[in-house]
Amino acid sequence: MMKMTVLSLFPEMFEGVFQTSILKQAQERGAVSLETVNFRDYSKDKHNRVDDYPYGGGGGMVLKPQPVFDAVEDICSSDTKKPHVILLCPQGERYSQKKAEELAEEDHLVLICGHYEGYDERIRTELVDEEISIGDFVLTGGEIGAMTIVDSVTRLQPGALGNEHSAVSDSFSTGLLEYPHYTRPANFRHLPVPDVLLSGHHERIETWRHKEALRRTYERRPDLLEERKLTDQEKAWLREFSNET
Amino acid sequence: MMKMTVLSLFPEMFEGVFQTSILKQAQERGAVSLETVNFRDYSKDKHNRVDDYPYGGGGGMVLKPQPVFDAVEDICSSDTKKPHVILLCPQGERYSQKKAEELAEEDHLVLICGHYEGYDERIRTELVDEEISIGDFVLTGGEIGAMTIVDSVTRLQPGALGNEHSAVSDSFSTGLLEYPHYTRPANFRHLPVPDVLLSGHHERIETWRHKEALRRTYERRPDLLEERKLTDQEKAWLREFSNET
Repeated sequence: MMKMTVLSLFPEMFEGVFQTSILKQAQERGAVSLETVNFRDYSKDKHNRVDDYPYGGGGGMVLKPQPVFDAVEDICSSDTKKPHVILLCPQGERYSQKKAEELAEEDHLVLICGHYEGYDERIRTELVDEEISIGDFVLTGGEIGAMTIVDSVTRLQPGALGNEHSAVSDSFSTGLLEYPHYTRPANFRHLPVPDVLLSGHHERIETWRHKEALRRTYERRPDLLEERKLTDQEKAWLREFSNET
Repeated sequence: MMKMTVLSLFPEMFEGVFQTSILKQAQERGAVSLETVNFRDYSKDKHNRVDDYPYGGGGGMVLKPQPVFDAVEDICSSDTKKPHVILLCPQGERYSQKKAEELAEEDHLVLICGHYEGYDERIRTELVDEEISIGDFVLTGGEIGAMTIVDSVTRLQPGALGNEHSAVSDSFSTGLLEYPHYTRPANFRHLPVPDVLLSGHHERIETWRHKEALRRTYERRPDLLEERKLTDQEKAWLREFSNET
């Protein structure tokens, strides 16, 4: 069973997220073990401080190395193999589904969430295997990034999703964006469902879905098509779309 | 005061996040108003269902239009201006700090978090102003994306951060990644702080930081340098870095 440990000064942020929906079920099913650790508990400072002024001056506070080193070492003390330690940080490698698949192979992930202005550089260079960012936007801390990793990696564990989800194609797995979905009613506020979906004609439905998935990808994420080996039918549809615009 | 309303089937996921750190303080300071609404409460189905089978067959369930339309309309009923409605979805536009700055200008954001396989297409086309994705990875629902938007947009509201944070430069705001930070002790487990930071020589410290910020950007995110108007000193440093590797 894969284990993920989040180091955060605000473990209460994770309670609702870890106890809801798929993450809750995956733990109950024994597919993952999730825990949070407040590294303030490891501070040897008499006021339990975890941050201090930066050498060289300047605004903001810097996370001290001692509490983070001691917390990680304590967490790992029962592991037979060194866990994979990740720092959530705006300067890290951009997270992707490919990275989620890589991380899903690990036995134990340790995710360090910073706050304040930054981490003491020795945490980066000596303790951490990898720095990850979920995107180019400024967040208060690493917690939302850690949730992103925990959720995406949990979904990839065997048995995590249960039967009701596992058979279904997820976004990105086909290389195209998803086709439009419709459910009842067939007419909602004068907005009808496309006739083809009500036709019962499976082959026409499949063709329509394939074409609309390609259209959506062409309109929104043409970069995904660059790597794709297109069929003749797809090439013909793409010519049709480009004539429409 | 800016308002953000999250529509989710799992509002409990947001409790810890909205009641911690900056988001808690920003609400107490009156900089933002945050609320969660469970759109299941708006279902007119006798079992309070919010999803139904897809027209045309296939696996997975689709979010019905009725509960989402009714919830958004109820939320907006007291607004004098139509709020800006965002759907969190893997097919949306990639979120960025620039988008956060745009959204921070709105009076009221409504963030719709889906679960299951997808949304009825009429939600997209009729109710939603914009679809946003936080990245190319598969998550269980839109909740973590909504937290990302709420946190990044809240930080941009006047008065949200208080004085202790507002003066400090954030990642991305200078166009370079951040320079390495160090705090006490000067020697931690035989890992010393660079001498220059202990020198007290402000100009040398500034130069070192500028150079190390440029080096980190060159090594990790050279794309950020393409848009930058480089000084002669920066060009010289870049030549030095490229000779080192």
